[in-house]
Amino acid sequence: MASVSSSARPHPLQRLNDEEILKAKDILAKSHDSGENLLFRFTYLEEPKREDMVKYLAAEHQDDKTATLPTLPRMVKFVYDVIKGPGDHTLADAVVDIDSGKVVHTQTHPRESQAGYAPFEFAQFQETCINSDMFKEALKEFELPPNFTITIDPWPYGGQDPDEDIPRYMQGLVFARDASKDNPDANHYGYPLPLIPVMDFNKKELVRIDRLATGGKGDPLEPAAASSETPKKLFANAKSAEYVPELLDRPLRTDAKPINITQPDGASFAVADDASLVTWQKWRFRLGFSPREGAVLHDLCYDGRPVFYRLSFSEMCVPYGDPRPPWHRKQAFDFGDGGAGRSANNLGLGCDCLGAIRYFDVWDTDPEGLPTLSKNVVCLHEQDAGVGWKHTNFRTGRAVVTRLRELVVQFIITLANYEYIFAYKLDNAGNVTLETRATGIVSVVAIDEGKTSAYGNVNHQHIFAARLDPAIDSYDAGETAVVLEESHSMPAIDPLTNPYGNGYEVRRTPLEKAAFADAEPRLNRVVRFENRTRKNAVSGKNVGYKLTPSATQLMLAHPDSTQAKRAPFAQHHLWVTGHRDGELWAAGEFTNQSRGEVGGVKAMVERGDWFGKEGEATNGDVGEGTEGEGKLSTPVAWVVWGLTHNPRVEDWPVMPVEIHQVHIRPADFFTSNPALDVPSTKNETSVLVPSSSSPCCDAKEQKKTDASQQEDPVSHMQGSGPDVKPKDIGSGSKEGKDKKRFTTLLSGVFGKKE
Amino acid sequence: MASVSSSARPHPLQRLNDEEILKAKDILAKSHDSGENLLFRFTYLEEPKREDMVKYLAAEHQDDKTATLPTLPRMVKFVYDVIKGPGDHTLADAVVDIDSGKVVHTQTHPRESQAGYAPFEFAQFQETCINSDMFKEALKEFELPPNFTITIDPWPYGGQDPDEDIPRYMQGLVFARDASKDNPDANHYGYPLPLIPVMDFNKKELVRIDRLATGGKGDPLEPAAASSETPKKLFANAKSAEYVPELLDRPLRTDAKPINITQPDGASFAVADDASLVTWQKWRFRLGFSPREGAVLHDLCYDGRPVFYRLSFSEMCVPYGDPRPPWHRKQAFDFGDGGAGRSANNLGLGCDCLGAIRYFDVWDTDPEGLPTLSKNVVCLHEQDAGVGWKHTNFRTGRAVVTRLRELVVQFIITLANYEYIFAYKLDNAGNVTLETRATGIVSVVAIDEGKTSAYGNVNHQHIFAARLDPAIDSYDAGETAVVLEESHSMPAIDPLTNPYGNGYEVRRTPLEKAAFADAEPRLNRVVRFENRTRKNAVSGKNVGYKLTPSATQLMLAHPDSTQAKRAPFAQHHLWVTGHRDGELWAAGEFTNQSRGEVGGVKAMVERGDWFGKEGEATNGDVGEGTEGEGKLSTPVAWVVWGLTHNPRVEDWPVMPVEIHQVHIRPADFFTSNPALDVPSTKNETSVLVPSSSSPCCDAKEQKKTDASQQEDPVSHMQGSGPDVKPKDIGSGSKEGKDKKRFTTLLSGVFGKKE
Repeated sequence: MASVSSSARPHPLQRLNDEEILKAKDILAKSHDSGENLLFRFTYLEEPKREDMVKYLAAEHQDDKTATLPTLPRMVKFVYDVIKGPGDHTLADAVVDIDSGKVVHTQTHPRESQAGYAPFEFAQFQETCINSDMFKEALKEFELPPNFTITIDPWPYGGQDPDEDIPRYMQGLVFARDASKDNPDANHYGYPLPLIPVMDFNKKELVRIDRLATGGKGDPLEPAAASSETPKKLFANAKSAEYVPELLDRPLRTDAKPINITQPDGASFAVADDASLVTWQKWRFRLGFSPREGAVLHDLCYDGRPVFYRLSFSEMCVPYGDPRPPWHRKQAFDFGDGGAGRSANNLGLGCDCLGAIRYFDVWDTDPEGLPTLSKNVVCLHEQDAGVGWKHTNFRTGRAVVTRLRELVVQFIITLANYEYIFAYKLDNAGNVTLETRATGIVSVVAIDEGKTSAYGNVNHQHIFAARLDPAIDSYDAGETAVVLEESHSMPAIDPLTNPYGNGYEVRRTPLEKAAFADAEPRLNRVVRFENRTRKNAVSGKNVGYKLTPSATQLMLAHPDSTQAKRAPFAQHHLWVTGHRDGELWAAGEFTNQSRGEVGGVKAMVERGDWFGKEGEATNGDVGEGTEGEGKLSTPVAWVVWGLTHNPRVEDWPVMPVEIHQVHIRPADFFTSNPALDVPSTKNETSVLVPSSSSPCCDAKEQKKTDASQQEDPVSHMQGSGPDVKPKDIGSGSKEGKDKKRFTTLLSGVFGKKE
Repeated sequence: MASVSSSARPHPLQRLNDEEILKAKDILAKSHDSGENLLFRFTYLEEPKREDMVKYLAAEHQDDKTATLPTLPRMVKFVYDVIKGPGDHTLADAVVDIDSGKVVHTQTHPRESQAGYAPFEFAQFQETCINSDMFKEALKEFELPPNFTITIDPWPYGGQDPDEDIPRYMQGLVFARDASKDNPDANHYGYPLPLIPVMDFNKKELVRIDRLATGGKGDPLEPAAASSETPKKLFANAKSAEYVPELLDRPLRTDAKPINITQPDGASFAVADDASLVTWQKWRFRLGFSPREGAVLHDLCYDGRPVFYRLSFSEMCVPYGDPRPPWHRKQAFDFGDGGAGRSANNLGLGCDCLGAIRYFDVWDTDPEGLPTLSKNVVCLHEQDAGVGWKHTNFRTGRAVVTRLRELVVQFIITLANYEYIFAYKLDNAGNVTLETRATGIVSVVAIDEGKTSAYGNVNHQHIFAARLDPAIDSYDAGETAVVLEESHSMPAIDPLTNPYGNGYEVRRTPLEKAAFADAEPRLNRVVRFENRTRKNAVSGKNVGYKLTPSATQLMLAHPDSTQAKRAPFAQHHLWVTGHRDGELWAAGEFTNQSRGEVGGVKAMVERGDWFGKEGEATNGDVGEGTEGEGKLSTPVAWVVWGLTHNPRVEDWPVMPVEIHQVHIRPADFFTSNPALDVPSTKNETSVLVPSSSSPCCDAKEQKKTDASQQEDPVSHMQGSGPDVKPKDIGSGSKEGKDKKRFTTLLSGVFGKKE
């Protein structure tokens, strides 16, 4: 990577490489006193200001390749601790300009602003617990079966209670693992202990151990008193819950024969510019990656026309619904408290996707700020998605059928027990789909034998937010508008307007200022991203793309609860805010231990940014305007969806994927079906399974024997069907004859008659 | 087929073969006077009564294979016209018992009950129009470009107006086709004429020709007066809208390289019992087919346990929203007016699906009642659907990842301009998905040049209904219950019940009687099909499956309109009714020309069938009980979803598929993840696209060169991670050392660090 990029000035949106990180880190280190130790937490490419970047992109996309591109600085943003002595940590961030060798921005944060946890903190936490007398004492309250070992999952502390004012804490979920199996992958999640050690990170010591209630229906919220004299016997009758093949309680199924996806001519996509520029089927984008967001799509264009300036997953919040303290603090922000990008798995060929796959490595930093290479954290592949469009002319029997094909940008994150699979899907019909799959292991809690919980099986929610920064057919600020569109019944049966009552109308509501809204599928509410001035040549409407928000369940926690206050984004399906550089976080930058949202979508909407009235000229007076100023802001949309997860028995020990998709489709962006030019080529490798099919038949053999039975669906059938020229009228054939002909004509469409 | 089936008594749910149809038709013909001509419209397998059939299935599924199966009669149901003279048609249906050679049921229907149109009627209609002086006169009002020919799409007449009382009618949409292209597949839908001829089928003549308004915003609802003296010039500047490759206005894209799906060991499914019994990955079902429903799944079982007695698509209604008469009558019921099964395409290998595919033929009848074979109307194949479940142990770096695999039962129907793709998907995690894809050509109407319609681009809706007849883990009548389940915030922050406000609760509402309900995703409303008595061994809850209805937009037409009255099913997302043999139609049996629903879900619910209180013993007192009788009915669910289609320019000339899925998932039906035994086998044919990838690279070459770069995702990493046995506590390593070890341990999960 480095060797390549050092040979030429990298694209302003290109991911950072090791040289750049090292250089920037040295510049920053020099800017600090020798007495100050730096502990690096997050390292980002500091993207150019949108205002500057779009000028660059406009020039870059000009046909005139000699156009000179503006020179934009390469900058690195570090989030780090300044340590002046034991326990004396100050959170800071700084932006370093690599070209000028200068620190161009620096800022320190108050104690209530806590950065997400870094992996090394997991180890510190584990170590601290293990060595803590307090923890050892607590363990004496329990008697484990022989050969069970203690293992601890680090967890964010969650929101501070109203009466708390704490430094950096972390809490842990304590489990036991059956070591008698002599397998480090024996599943410990089936053996939870009712303890939660809490650690002070600056002091590096446990401050307390919370006890958990283990009662059932009718029992009090508080845990029963514990005693180390008469330890409580745990897991005497607990059933193991293994998922690794060699420990399974059942044989693996053997009746699933291979499905191979092969691309003899290779992939249809191209990756260039130091692995940052991806082109495929008229789509083009820059693949970015950040330790917090994972994969990011920059400058997404179709056929040279911009659609989105930036597409990213922004946040995901997991509040738990068990009212018994301290479960109310079990609320993870997997982007803000952990970092989705930094939790991205090293993906495996032939496991996480099939076919011809391109993997991407990214550079991150270790606690000393030294570059570390994360391999295979993003995969790119294309896949078939069934019939794309089809029409059969029933008069001639000719079918024209094309395949829907998708390009998938995928990354998979692991946060302790849970996995999430994130994907951006682009297809050959111009659609953009954001897909999430939830899987992994449910975070269970201890319950007394024979009891049933009054609160379900650790019922919880997963609420996602994606950030959509549209640039519909133009990079110009102020060009993009957001419009809500709904379909409504006409109010009444009326002889003059709706005589038979079947009429319905489509209503548009352009958003003039920052706002939130909810999904209303019952009104067919869609969110249109439109270009204010460019019209579709066929319809005369603004060219646009439309998003259909899903009416999934929103935050269930009481509006006055800390859980709800920390994640206002989770209270509406759509937020539309005015663009500000660096505003990427639906729940704000610092979610860890937050009491409430700071700088998230709620705050952004309350700013009252102004988008202007429909049809009103912008007069180029655009930028960062709020209502009243007249200056127009550029709208950014945040779409929110979720999954209320009241676990089924089927979700144990590892849950089958729960899939959700957000669909973004062209809406009068093109002048016809963009997939019209997809060839209706017959796939030659598909084979017939003959009538005598049985599980042991050989598909390869079948083609020879049965191919002849097949119709060629794209062949012409003769006869122009019952069309008739005006002059011919009257010379029609007799009904019988015509019926016969008609039946023949139909036979190609409807299962061939014999 | 016949030869096989005649050798043994067919299974009671097996599709009819030609011998059976022929035999039954002869029996029926003999039962009529010689003076009566029979015109056959629909031919069905008359399924055994559910009460009898479940006894058979219970015996069939016994391990004891010597169990004697009850003998159930093979019966054929015919829907046909009895013609006693010209224009003297009486609609009748009859059920013939093939074994006894007797007509066991016969019934005639009043004039207001109109059967769906049969294909031969399309030809009669076309012929009648062509030869009609009235039609010839009407055409003189228009001047077409040279070499344009007239072509007419037959359409259902739609609902009768309140003041109408008519015999069997049909209406037609008139188009012109550019014959100068000398291609019978030149697209005529781009050239609509503002005429709708209406035919009386018994008299075989046109009764009138409706003129269509062609105005724009502000113009009256009525069409402008026409004149044959000064013909109106049409399509002078109309742009053609071709979709067949050789007529396209653009070159086909050449940059999509083949994606081949191969199954070297063949398909994993088996098809037996005269192509009626399908088994795959613990799933088992009988594949049925009817001319009205298309493919039907009977006796769907998983691992020998019944889940659904019968699964079918029941109806699909397409109301148009243009209030200008006579468009209020443009409302097709594609199952009741046409017949989805009879409109099923002859599917093509390598076009409509990929891989190893099994096609199914079905027997239908021609107007004389003679058997006709429809070939390849259903296809069966399995496909990969991405990651099925995954967990990575962050301590050892070991990832276990399995693939989600689906079995797809697909059929595709063409109704004039439109195509619909219907699929049942079963997967290896025990899920059932109903999928519909809408594609084909939008039915456009004429508009004066330069004008814009006040009613959108033929805005319309597609509203689907599927029928789910559950048999959850038991065939016993009265065993299955339907429960609505919702997740609700706890009402208040309360020190005793919800001290921090994060609590939420799950509420159950068992349905005690027939009812309708709407989707409420905001409450996470799910519909549980439960077994009243069988408990899940792990959770103690009733074993069940859950359906999540989609909150799609319902019928927009005014409730008092004929459009709405004809399709009450389209006014709610869920209907739960008491089972009655033969009740398969959400909008009733006779939708054609209906003024309102007769015998559809609304009428079924109003019957007040009784399901009983939760926990109440059935006392075996089950069957067809209504409220008050105490007798329990067996619940049948009807799920409704739709698509409000306000066409985009992108939907022209052939629309990209608009996909909708209905998800039915196990809910405490199993005692663990049913896909736990799916092997995490690495697919050996997947290949790397190397860093130097370009569109012309050869994927086959890459494997050799790059495979070495890959991690084996299922390999163990050494070290048991920071687990510790209680006795070891205190002997913890120093933080530095531990951090180093921890970083190593993490490296397998999170992109490998270097």
